[in-house]
Amino acid sequence: MPQGQVSVTPEDGLTTRQRRNRPLLMVHTGVMKGKSTAAFGMALRGWNQGWSIGVFQFVKSAKWKVGEEEAFRALGRVHDETGEGGPVEWHKMGSGWSWSRKQGSETDHADDAREGWAEIRRRLRAEQHGLYVLDEFTYPLKWGWIDVDEVVAELTGRPGHQHVIITGRDAPQALIDAADLVMETTKVTHPMDAGQKGQRGIEW
Amino acid sequence: MPQGQVSVTPEDGLTTRQRRNRPLLMVHTGVMKGKSTAAFGMALRGWNQGWSIGVFQFVKSAKWKVGEEEAFRALGRVHDETGEGGPVEWHKMGSGWSWSRKQGSETDHADDAREGWAEIRRRLRAEQHGLYVLDEFTYPLKWGWIDVDEVVAELTGRPGHQHVIITGRDAPQALIDAADLVMETTKVTHPMDAGQKGQRGIEW
Repeated sequence: MPQGQVSVTPEDGLTTRQRRNRPLLMVHTGVMKGKSTAAFGMALRGWNQGWSIGVFQFVKSAKWKVGEEEAFRALGRVHDETGEGGPVEWHKMGSGWSWSRKQGSETDHADDAREGWAEIRRRLRAEQHGLYVLDEFTYPLKWGWIDVDEVVAELTGRPGHQHVIITGRDAPQALIDAADLVMETTKVTHPMDAGQKGQRGIEW
Repeated sequence: MPQGQVSVTPEDGLTTRQRRNRPLLMVHTGVMKGKSTAAFGMALRGWNQGWSIGVFQFVKSAKWKVGEEEAFRALGRVHDETGEGGPVEWHKMGSGWSWSRKQGSETDHADDAREGWAEIRRRLRAEQHGLYVLDEFTYPLKWGWIDVDEVVAELTGRPGHQHVIITGRDAPQALIDAADLVMETTKVTHPMDAGQKGQRGIEW
C-alpha cells in the first residue's frame, strides 16, 4: 500500500531525512509463529541493501528454522562470491554458540543465553552489523536469565546505524516501550486445531 | 517453541501422515505490514525444501518489496547453478505481467488482475509450483475485479500438493473460511506514528 502519511511532525530537532534513516528497534511478539518468519522476511530487504546481517537464535533445537538458515547461508555465499547483497552470519545457541569453546558440552542454558547477549553487546558497541535478528530473545528475558533493563539501556544507547529485531512471545513491557515498532501476531485459525501436526517446509 | 500438541483428532478418514502433509491454504491479513514479509519468510523454508516457488504480486509499483524480490531471484540463481533449494519465479503485475504482450502499455488494472488470476489458475491445474505466494491478492477480490467464489472453488479443489499463501488487508470472509491457516497482524507501535516515513531496507 502507499507510503504512509505522517500524521505528526515530532519536535525532536531532527530533519526529515535524519528521522527517516533513524536506526530502528523492532519487536515481533504475540502468540503466532509469524514473528520470526516476518523478521527473516525483513532481513531479506536488509540483505538486498548490502547490510551485514547478524542472526542470533536463542533456541535449543537445531531443527528450528533450518529453512531460513539454509536460505540465508546461501544468500551469504552469493554475497561472498559476487558482492551482491550483504554478508550473513547465523549463530544459534543450540548446545553452545559457534564461537564458544564450550560448544557441544553440557552447559547451562542460562549461561549460554548470557554468553549470547554478551557477544551481541560487544558487536553492537563495535557497530558490527547493519541488522541484528535476536530470534526468540524474549525468553531469556522473561525467565530472568538476562536483565531486561540492561538490555534496554544497551539497545537504546547503541551507536551508529544498527537495526535490531527481537522476536518471541511475551516481550517484557520495558522492551515494548523502548521499541520503535512492535508487531503483534494474532492467531485466527491454525491447522493444528484440526488435528494437523507441523510439516516440513511450513513449520520449519 | 515445541511442536504443537494436537488437541483433537479429526474424523476425516486420513492417516496422521496424510493429514500432516496436506497442502495448505494460508491467508495473512490484518492492518500491519508483516503480512507479506511473513509470507516471504515462509517461502524461504519452501525454497530450502526444493519446492518450486511462484510469487505473483498484485501490486502496481515496481518499488514495493524489491528487497525480497532481489533476494529470491538470487536464491533462484543458486538453485539453477548448484541445484540447492528450489527454482523461483517472481511475477508482478506492475504495468502488465512479464508473460503478457500487453506489458508496458496502458492497460486496465482490473484486466491485469484478472489476467494474473487466469495464469495462476492454469498453473494450479498443471501443478506447476510447490508454493504460491499471491501477494496483495485480497485487493482485486475486495474490489470485485475477480470473483471470490470462483477463487475459493479453484483453491479448495486444486490437485496435488500445492501450498498457497495469500496476503493483503480485508481478506473476504469466504477466503478466510476456506483457509487452513489465517495469520492476522495487529499494529501496536509504528515509527510512522512518531513522524517517521518509510526507509530503505525496512519498508522495501
